[in-house]
Amino acid sequence: MGGDSGPLITIPSAISAINHLPNLHLILCGDESAIQSQLKLNNSSNHPQITIVHTSEVVAMDEKPSIALRTKKDSSMRRALDLVQSGEAQACVSAGNTGALFASAHYVLKMLPGIERPALVSQLPIANSNQHAFMLDLGANVFCDSNTLFQFAIMGSVMSEQVDGIASPRVALLNMGEEEIKGSDHIKQTANLLKACPEINYIGFIEGNDIFSGKADVIVCDGFVGNVALKTCEGVARLVMAKVLEIIKESKFTRILGLLLIPTLKKMVKRLNPDQYNGASLIGLRGIVVKSHGNATSSAFYNAILEAVKEVERQVPEKIKTKLELGLVKRS
Amino acid sequence: MGGDSGPLITIPSAISAINHLPNLHLILCGDESAIQSQLKLNNSSNHPQITIVHTSEVVAMDEKPSIALRTKKDSSMRRALDLVQSGEAQACVSAGNTGALFASAHYVLKMLPGIERPALVSQLPIANSNQHAFMLDLGANVFCDSNTLFQFAIMGSVMSEQVDGIASPRVALLNMGEEEIKGSDHIKQTANLLKACPEINYIGFIEGNDIFSGKADVIVCDGFVGNVALKTCEGVARLVMAKVLEIIKESKFTRILGLLLIPTLKKMVKRLNPDQYNGASLIGLRGIVVKSHGNATSSAFYNAILEAVKEVERQVPEKIKTKLELGLVKRS
Repeated sequence: MGGDSGPLITIPSAISAINHLPNLHLILCGDESAIQSQLKLNNSSNHPQITIVHTSEVVAMDEKPSIALRTKKDSSMRRALDLVQSGEAQACVSAGNTGALFASAHYVLKMLPGIERPALVSQLPIANSNQHAFMLDLGANVFCDSNTLFQFAIMGSVMSEQVDGIASPRVALLNMGEEEIKGSDHIKQTANLLKACPEINYIGFIEGNDIFSGKADVIVCDGFVGNVALKTCEGVARLVMAKVLEIIKESKFTRILGLLLIPTLKKMVKRLNPDQYNGASLIGLRGIVVKSHGNATSSAFYNAILEAVKEVERQVPEKIKTKLELGLVKRS
Repeated sequence: MGGDSGPLITIPSAISAINHLPNLHLILCGDESAIQSQLKLNNSSNHPQITIVHTSEVVAMDEKPSIALRTKKDSSMRRALDLVQSGEAQACVSAGNTGALFASAHYVLKMLPGIERPALVSQLPIANSNQHAFMLDLGANVFCDSNTLFQFAIMGSVMSEQVDGIASPRVALLNMGEEEIKGSDHIKQTANLLKACPEINYIGFIEGNDIFSGKADVIVCDGFVGNVALKTCEGVARLVMAKVLEIIKESKFTRILGLLLIPTLKKMVKRLNPDQYNGASLIGLRGIVVKSHGNATSSAFYNAILEAVKEVERQVPEKIKTKLELGLVKRS
């Protein structure tokens, strides 16, 4: 039911996903009649890979997270998380109210042992390559202490290993300089924790200009910095797009050439907004939660479903738990 | 003497500046014979608008700021700052070691009354416009409390008024969301200080994607966030450039488009690196200091000189002092 368009977007994405993956079973939580009518429109009524769980409530996109958590116990979002908690579902994908999803996921699923805070993580593109880097936290937390950042490094490392198949992911801390003396005390403390942990291939500090350069497979920062950096990317991409459009408009000739460039650049701007591209994952919980953007297109929501499937197959939460135990044991 | 190329870059820039501004007088601090030989090469020996102050030392680009401050009292950088402090010069422009410049400027010039920390500020481009926004702090400090951020807002507002001639500059706080409940406690406290100050046209929180949108004339954040955001911009601009180049290489036809696009895009990437474009100013001090990039071109260093001239003409430090007094008086 979530997102700006609800079942209009989520149902077609769900159908594409089950058609693509014959072993995938989707439990659609929400208003049964709205779901049924969309399934019918897409010629998929009574599909064997789909179960509907009717819910009587919906968390509005502008609802206060605390209110949603306390009062909307039969919302589509809450029921989906309950199904993950009970083991009836293996992952939850939502395009709904971000704050409510985070608060409810935290409350319903609980943290993995040894992890204090969940982190929002996503893949960012790397220049001149098809590779990507995982960056976290992208805004689930405001400020993070050194232990939390250390845990984020473990979690990011597992994501890169399991989802991207990187053998020994290079983990970097985002800082305002590469020199060891730079940055705040908690960043320096985190660096010391990471250096002392043999489970992590820590490569040092990197600066903002290297997020997309391919220097690191995992980039760790607190949620405030990650969120500002990521949204700034979107701003710059739009700025560059505006400049390109300005040049292209200058003559008929350049306008034709623009037809070649604009679609690729638009796709790139979108890639810089991860939850519009393939969702961002809320990790550190005892269950898998993927957040798609409120105004996600069908293909973005479809990508978010595939991302959840990948995390289920690779057992990301279990792997984080193991890696953290190993990291902490070897550290002590 | 500063920067990667020293007088090879700074002398031609100095000559361009005095030729452009007949009332400008430049005091060149550094090794006299190196300066003289560059002046001669540029047919400007004994120029009436130039004085040379010979210094026996140079702060190396990789020197520790504390060492430079303590031991290099006859360095070109230190002497230039001394001249500002004594009133013999009205501004200092340097492409030298950033940390050493900040530490020495802070020590030699001292803070303006009521200002606790200097801030690094620069102009950023705005999409679809020739306007720009001032953003601070870009990395002179790591973490800033709410009083410091409040002072930065006052200083940024004065820069926008005096340098850009904006009557009532719109001041925004960079945050991870626009809603009032978002962000850290010290950001919320800063918002309250700004709301209560009639001297500031405070417009609320903005997110990273609005840095270049023209919503605000002044964007305030702590040095860590500002530095990461700005350097991330550079990274994204390079990423987009790489993508454009990739598409352009595809055919002869698109290569022609490239000839039109590449120079403008390269210029744009440079504009996103303020100290390569026109320098970044260290404000809050009892004197004017403009920092140009270590690998600045002649035109970038020339722009930094013009920026310093502008700040002298508009009496930026005095205006900051007055505005701060007004803001604090009305607040109490």
